[in-house]
Amino acid sequence: MDQTAFMIGFLVMSLASLAIYATGKKTPPSHHHTLLHAAVPFIAATAYLAMAFGIGTLVKGDGAATYLARYADWTVTTPILLSSLVLLAFHERGKTGEVGGYLTAIIVLDVLMIVTGLVSSLAEVPLVKWVWYLWSCVAFVGVLYLLWGPLRAMAAEREGALGSAYGKNVTFLTVIWFLYPIVFLIGPEGLKIITDPMSVWAILIMDIVAKVAYAFYAASNLDTALHHHSRQA
Amino acid sequence: MDQTAFMIGFLVMSLASLAIYATGKKTPPSHHHTLLHAAVPFIAATAYLAMAFGIGTLVKGDGAATYLARYADWTVTTPILLSSLVLLAFHERGKTGEVGGYLTAIIVLDVLMIVTGLVSSLAEVPLVKWVWYLWSCVAFVGVLYLLWGPLRAMAAEREGALGSAYGKNVTFLTVIWFLYPIVFLIGPEGLKIITDPMSVWAILIMDIVAKVAYAFYAASNLDTALHHHSRQA
Amino acid sequence: MDQTAFMIGFLVMSLASLAIYATGKKTPPSHHHTLLHAAVPFIAATAYLAMAFGIGTLVKGDGAATYLARYADWTVTTPILLSSLVLLAFHERGKTGEVGGYLTAIIVLDVLMIVTGLVSSLAEVPLVKWVWYLWSCVAFVGVLYLLWGPLRAMAAEREGALGSAYGKNVTFLTVIWFLYPIVFLIGPEGLKIITDPMSVWAILIMDIVAKVAYAFYAASNLDTALHHHSRQA
Repeated sequence: MDQTAFMIGFLVMSLASLAIYATGKKTPPSHHHTLLHAAVPFIAATAYLAMAFGIGTLVKGDGAATYLARYADWTVTTPILLSSLVLLAFHERGKTGEVGGYLTAIIVLDVLMIVTGLVSSLAEVPLVKWVWYLWSCVAFVGVLYLLWGPLRAMAAEREGALGSAYGKNVTFLTVIWFLYPIVFLIGPEGLKIITDPMSVWAILIMDIVAKVAYAFYAASNLDTALHHHSRQA
Repeated sequence: MDQTAFMIGFLVMSLASLAIYATGKKTPPSHHHTLLHAAVPFIAATAYLAMAFGIGTLVKGDGAATYLARYADWTVTTPILLSSLVLLAFHERGKTGEVGGYLTAIIVLDVLMIVTGLVSSLAEVPLVKWVWYLWSCVAFVGVLYLLWGPLRAMAAEREGALGSAYGKNVTFLTVIWFLYPIVFLIGPEGLKIITDPMSVWAILIMDIVAKVAYAFYAASNLDTALHHHSRQA
Repeated sequence: MDQTAFMIGFLVMSLASLAIYATGKKTPPSHHHTLLHAAVPFIAATAYLAMAFGIGTLVKGDGAATYLARYADWTVTTPILLSSLVLLAFHERGKTGEVGGYLTAIIVLDVLMIVTGLVSSLAEVPLVKWVWYLWSCVAFVGVLYLLWGPLRAMAAEREGALGSAYGKNVTFLTVIWFLYPIVFLIGPEGLKIITDPMSVWAILIMDIVAKVAYAFYAASNLDTALHHHSRQA
């Protein structure tokens, strides 16, 4: 019955990838945001296809499943979503090295957050599980610090429209991303308060919000800002 | 006897890496193309060395071998070859974010094409094998769409010489890359029409064309275009 | 008792990451160097935490241990350290494609150096071990060639201060990096002249020098050069 959730995930993500590309801006200066946001659900679709076939699904000693395809998906999709935010903060400014430094730092923290989460999921000894969960949260705090500290300051230096688009997007992303460590905590990989199917359906809905709804919301905020920006220029 | 093919692959790729670097342009604006094209056969040489020692070679239940070293090689070399084409389409233009958006989208599709091909190769149930083969082809179509659609349009906007270099390189790459899914389809990982040694020799020749011959061909087209370009400027 | 070394590694690297960020420049044109150098010990801290818990530690047939966490750490941290040097050589110059070409070529050689080192460490047949050790050294020679050849030439073209900062940093990094293949050679993964605890402590000290001491040294050289640079401009 979990198969249903995975097949829905595959279908929604595949169609969303096409829809984001088809409806997105195809000209500079926002074309690359369209490409980045269309790539994200294509990766998620592939991960849901893997989960539907049980590829990369590990069942541990305590009966709880770890879906490796999810972690592989997140390792690539979350850096892309962060890149889009970093590029918005630097919109059409910033030397290659400067943008590259921010991208590297935030992607390192983000990927470590996911890899340490995977270690926590696979750990069977409680001490090990919770030390790694905590270290994953430390990395998440690092990601949030960069998003809400230096990057927000940089976006706010710009005239109002771009700074406000950054503010809206980073707020949406932060709220939805906060749900993931909570579902992990109460789900079968953590305290086992909710069951595996409940966690699968919850993450399906969160994934659609974080990857699809967010893509349309972010594109609309960026379009509004650029429209405003070009009228002022 | 397959060892012979792998040792030849190692030797040809090692020497080709040196030769591409030695004969390539060492000054801007084409030095980075020399570096990218010299890196590709160095990676392939390492993969052939691994295959010669049987490192990463899995023999499945049906007796067919999957060479993991190949897939690891392709996961890195094909993004480099695509990057060189993307950078040619954008030659000396394009903001960091814009170029980065195209690079990310095409590399995501390309790497998914290879990873899903590996899943197809390892699958023992026919339905699973062919669903993943098909999904790999979908990703390949995405790569081709970006190469022949928006990127070709961007290259063609430039005066003739650079657009024509892009056109020649993308045609060469497309033709040779089309052979890989065909050899996979008829080879031991697919319909088993040709044997493992036949597939190893075929891929050796294709790899030399796609990585070595292509490097010299692409460099020569770029040099001609830049020569023309600087005379006009 | 090895646990002590790993816990020290975790603590030193965690605190160093915070200290490098706290004391580093937060404004362009050197902010991204601060971010890159602070990311490096955060990754190393995570690897030491894994080794402290025995995660990714393989004990082979001959009783020697291979710490996979180290190789995973190095695969990411050494490219970041090299990126910082490449960005210094190109400081505020260089088109996206040009810088990207150098970054790709040096990171490909560097990652192959580490992956082939891992294959050498895991190999039980001496011939295989030493062929891969040698091939890893070939990749290291490639990294050194790029650092001391074209990149040093590029840095030296600039007025004195930046060229001299590059020269100091590349000398420090080259000297400390030379120790790693030597410790591998005489350690339990190679000729077994020194024991596993000796090799763990030696690498701990080397890691602190290469990742922490180097970060402060490189930042100080860059600050001096930029101070000089801005006074001249």
